[in-house]
Amino acid sequence: MNLFAERINKLRLLLKQNGIDVYYVPTADFHGSEYINDYFKVRAYLSGFTGSAGTLFVTQSEAGLFTDGRYFIQAERELLGSGITLYRSGMEQVPTPEEKLSELLKDGGVLGFDGRFLSYAFLRFLNESLDNEKVTIRCDVDLTAELWPDRPALSHRPAYRLAERYTGKSTAQKLSEVREAMKKVHPETVYKKGSKQNFSKKQAFTAEVYLITSLDDIAWLFNLRGSDILHNPVVLSYAMITETKAFLYLEPAALDDTTKMLLEEEGVILRPYDAIYEDAAKLRDCTVLLDAKRVNCALVQALPKGCTLLDAVGPVLFAKAVKNDTELKNLAAAHRKDGVAVTKFMYWLKHNIGKQTITEASAAAHLLALRKEQEGFLEPSFETISAYNANAAMMHYHTDEKNSAELNTEGFLLVDSGGQYYEGTTDVTRTYVLGEIPLEWKKHYTAVLRGMLALSAANFLYGCRGANLDILARGPLWQMGLDYRCGTGHGVGYLLNVHEAPNNFRWRIMPERTDSCVLEEGMVTTNEPGVYVEESHGIRIENELVCRKGTKNEYGQFMYFETLTVTPIDLEAVLLEELTAAEKRTLNDYHKKVYETLLPYLTKEEGEWLREVTRPVE
Amino acid sequence: MNLFAERINKLRLLLKQNGIDVYYVPTADFHGSEYINDYFKVRAYLSGFTGSAGTLFVTQSEAGLFTDGRYFIQAERELLGSGITLYRSGMEQVPTPEEKLSELLKDGGVLGFDGRFLSYAFLRFLNESLDNEKVTIRCDVDLTAELWPDRPALSHRPAYRLAERYTGKSTAQKLSEVREAMKKVHPETVYKKGSKQNFSKKQAFTAEVYLITSLDDIAWLFNLRGSDILHNPVVLSYAMITETKAFLYLEPAALDDTTKMLLEEEGVILRPYDAIYEDAAKLRDCTVLLDAKRVNCALVQALPKGCTLLDAVGPVLFAKAVKNDTELKNLAAAHRKDGVAVTKFMYWLKHNIGKQTITEASAAAHLLALRKEQEGFLEPSFETISAYNANAAMMHYHTDEKNSAELNTEGFLLVDSGGQYYEGTTDVTRTYVLGEIPLEWKKHYTAVLRGMLALSAANFLYGCRGANLDILARGPLWQMGLDYRCGTGHGVGYLLNVHEAPNNFRWRIMPERTDSCVLEEGMVTTNEPGVYVEESHGIRIENELVCRKGTKNEYGQFMYFETLTVTPIDLEAVLLEELTAAEKRTLNDYHKKVYETLLPYLTKEEGEWLREVTRPVE
Repeated sequence: MNLFAERINKLRLLLKQNGIDVYYVPTADFHGSEYINDYFKVRAYLSGFTGSAGTLFVTQSEAGLFTDGRYFIQAERELLGSGITLYRSGMEQVPTPEEKLSELLKDGGVLGFDGRFLSYAFLRFLNESLDNEKVTIRCDVDLTAELWPDRPALSHRPAYRLAERYTGKSTAQKLSEVREAMKKVHPETVYKKGSKQNFSKKQAFTAEVYLITSLDDIAWLFNLRGSDILHNPVVLSYAMITETKAFLYLEPAALDDTTKMLLEEEGVILRPYDAIYEDAAKLRDCTVLLDAKRVNCALVQALPKGCTLLDAVGPVLFAKAVKNDTELKNLAAAHRKDGVAVTKFMYWLKHNIGKQTITEASAAAHLLALRKEQEGFLEPSFETISAYNANAAMMHYHTDEKNSAELNTEGFLLVDSGGQYYEGTTDVTRTYVLGEIPLEWKKHYTAVLRGMLALSAANFLYGCRGANLDILARGPLWQMGLDYRCGTGHGVGYLLNVHEAPNNFRWRIMPERTDSCVLEEGMVTTNEPGVYVEESHGIRIENELVCRKGTKNEYGQFMYFETLTVTPIDLEAVLLEELTAAEKRTLNDYHKKVYETLLPYLTKEEGEWLREVTRPVE
Repeated sequence: MNLFAERINKLRLLLKQNGIDVYYVPTADFHGSEYINDYFKVRAYLSGFTGSAGTLFVTQSEAGLFTDGRYFIQAERELLGSGITLYRSGMEQVPTPEEKLSELLKDGGVLGFDGRFLSYAFLRFLNESLDNEKVTIRCDVDLTAELWPDRPALSHRPAYRLAERYTGKSTAQKLSEVREAMKKVHPETVYKKGSKQNFSKKQAFTAEVYLITSLDDIAWLFNLRGSDILHNPVVLSYAMITETKAFLYLEPAALDDTTKMLLEEEGVILRPYDAIYEDAAKLRDCTVLLDAKRVNCALVQALPKGCTLLDAVGPVLFAKAVKNDTELKNLAAAHRKDGVAVTKFMYWLKHNIGKQTITEASAAAHLLALRKEQEGFLEPSFETISAYNANAAMMHYHTDEKNSAELNTEGFLLVDSGGQYYEGTTDVTRTYVLGEIPLEWKKHYTAVLRGMLALSAANFLYGCRGANLDILARGPLWQMGLDYRCGTGHGVGYLLNVHEAPNNFRWRIMPERTDSCVLEEGMVTTNEPGVYVEESHGIRIENELVCRKGTKNEYGQFMYFETLTVTPIDLEAVLLEELTAAEKRTLNDYHKKVYETLLPYLTKEEGEWLREVTRPVE
């Protein structure tokens, strides 16, 4: 019998024993992370499907897995023989996982899951959408002990403290600012534990306790970094901040004595990873600040009745997004180093294409080797996308040694990559001309460039969100009836996650999401419009922008962007006659800065070449 | 003793007799209208302040009036001797009226007002922001019978039916579509009358009853027009739609026998204006659709306990905003007629400036006379703004015969005006060059024009809201550190209000407002960027745009705008070297259309002049 069919059968037996009708297993960890550590890969263990996105449900008569278009082919192959039905999310007639739950439970029953995997907002959504007179929801059903005997241990790779010359602020200082913010919380909704009703008051509340479960928030607050998640230098942990104390919950083995001492010196109380659930259970009649969209529902369930829950985006999320002066100074250094590596890569690519065998994978490897030469480089900030021609039309293309395409002296190579440095996180995309390019591709490339330049050069009043500015980048493509099916850019962490809320550039306004905030001075956001034509080509040009304060006058505070990324934009595919005078100025100013910043770090030959590729255009 | 001090004293006596501690009188009617009929001007009657915006409160020891910057000087003068304190809204340290209420009632008390003047959303806001254990709110306190013996009678000017060749749809048809929408309401919030809690369920509800109180919604639904409010051809009325019946509440004297018959033929039941309150009181255990932001709270109070209130933007608001094919065909005719009048005005102005005495007021009068020559013209759609040089810096400037500035052969005349025609409502602004213009003014004029053209030429994916597009119009000004302190444009009714929700162009995203909806095909919105430099000059160029469906491809449904307004844009202040090639194309295409559309309706001399002023620019 198929290994996964056996696992599902075993699960069904356990469900029967536990009186559970529908079991629900999402892809997640206990912290709402984008990427997850192996310890949390329960869905993959049970179903055999190894993709990064998917949701499994199991009843006595049916098992189903939902995943999206990226994974249809892989999921079909991996689910073969498991008896699990594939639900192709996004296709017509295919329900959402939530709609499927509603259908399975329309006549009532018991829904079970491990609540640590799901947010409190999701639990509230279930409470609102399922018939609560007939359906029982159990958030405490963890069956992994029985199901997964060889489960990997919880990661406790060594964590380290990031010095103040990198962070710009001590943990003690950050804690004091967080406590100040806790005195004046404007919650979206206020819940009283034990009451079925929510209520809202247009007033400020004082939070006695602040629960933090997002790993990057915790890493930022405690100036702590680790490697529990690939590319994301975070530490598996929880935190609870009170008016006088700060509790940090993590595997004790993750800290050496020095790190422990440094934390304790700043008033941090260390507790085991799991202990937050017991500690939460002791918070009698407390007013607790938490972000219902981010905190897991098991933790909220652990809070005793009588607690008042203030649902609000926590102060750390915003404080972390606004880079301080030290961080910004460091980021300039990180981008300079990164720019040296990426520019040397461009030089190498342009001089070796057609002369030696280069594949997508070998190009990526060469770029990584160049980054490794930079002092303070730790690891890539995400898996490099190195995609040739039609492969670049797949936005999340990943090559491996075996299936890697060989590059020829024609078309485009798109390289989207980034680094983690002590001085910060980078993310940059360039699309390189390898030889002959059809006119249509040049038109697309030029439109992408025009959008990227227009957003970079924006001057705007304080109060703007990404949704107000997105059309600057997207407009030139929309005018041609083209689009890219994603946001224009995302926030970037500081030696943290390459995707960071709450700032972004995204045109769709979703009031229920907290990810299109007002752009504040010091926020770093990527600017990466693109064109993706299936089975033909893909183009993306990406710079990182930091938001700065400009003129203040009778109209208000004007803001502008400073570009962090420093590496040439390939001019070979630009149709100069399509650029406006303003666009040419922006491009030339940028290339002047690239040349001046990088020249001291290049060889004589590279420098001469750089002068040519950053020449002003007319 | 001052007349108004006496009225306030009389009010204080009545408050004492009625046990009211704080009395609250806003500027409003019972329908949330922007402009109000004299019958509703209680605040002006009590305070002596005649401005169009202001809020009065009276206690035994204090009386205060809040108004905004437009009215500080007028209010000071008019309040002199009344004993009423002026609160200058928007100035530092000045509370909002709501904050003042909180302060006055911080130790408890009874707050009274006539709930017909205030929305249900406002009542809920008060309930949330005032301490409901100590404060009693009474929404039924109408003291006008005692206070205002010579109050004008409720307006019941003759109403008339608009024929289907103008409306494109019968009332019977509109009612059937409204009833279809009532079967699937997605309320923002659901309230149960008599319960203190609100609850929300992610599901669709069926409304048994739909209460409509907005006058333009009612006029649209019943194809009825009148003249109860200056410039807004509406009829004082309420409506209640059930699954089988349609009740229209208005003063019986407003309808002649034919109109009555026509309405009754379409299944409309006529009831007296005030009877809606008794009828609402009879709706036992009904599910009632209403828009809490628009319906008055007295009407909601009249609903019996046990009713379920579905708070949602009603289907009429959206249906009315999306102009149908007949309306769009008619609108083209209305704009052609309006364009003939405005263009003849421009010809007259350009040929007579410096030759005869022209004032702001006489120019406006001449324009009105030209509009009156157009068949089907009924009245101006708002009070014409005719503003010379520095006067144009006041966005809502109004001139009168006595204080009207004389125009010289230098500077700008800004004219913002519009007409009500059977074929629709128009709104157009042009800024005319009268002679010498400083370079800076030309720079400003050119930036305003560039923004206006960019928004007009936008191509964008379906799903965009005004907030996504606003920067196209505002961008050229923001790049120069300039701004206009208002939205870029508003929706326009069809022979209805010149300001119509829910579509607009406005960059600030206010999730609590319903006025920045997704732009649908058939919505008409103004595009009117401007520059206003105090004590110097004002510039505004305004066209109306109708949203149209463009290409549909793998990226989605593209949308674009078609310009409705047809009258030349004065080229004399344009710095051509600052226009991009694309902007010149848009301008030339527009002027070509203006020339071709208007030529048949002009004299030979006017036609020759028009060819010159609509010449293509290079």
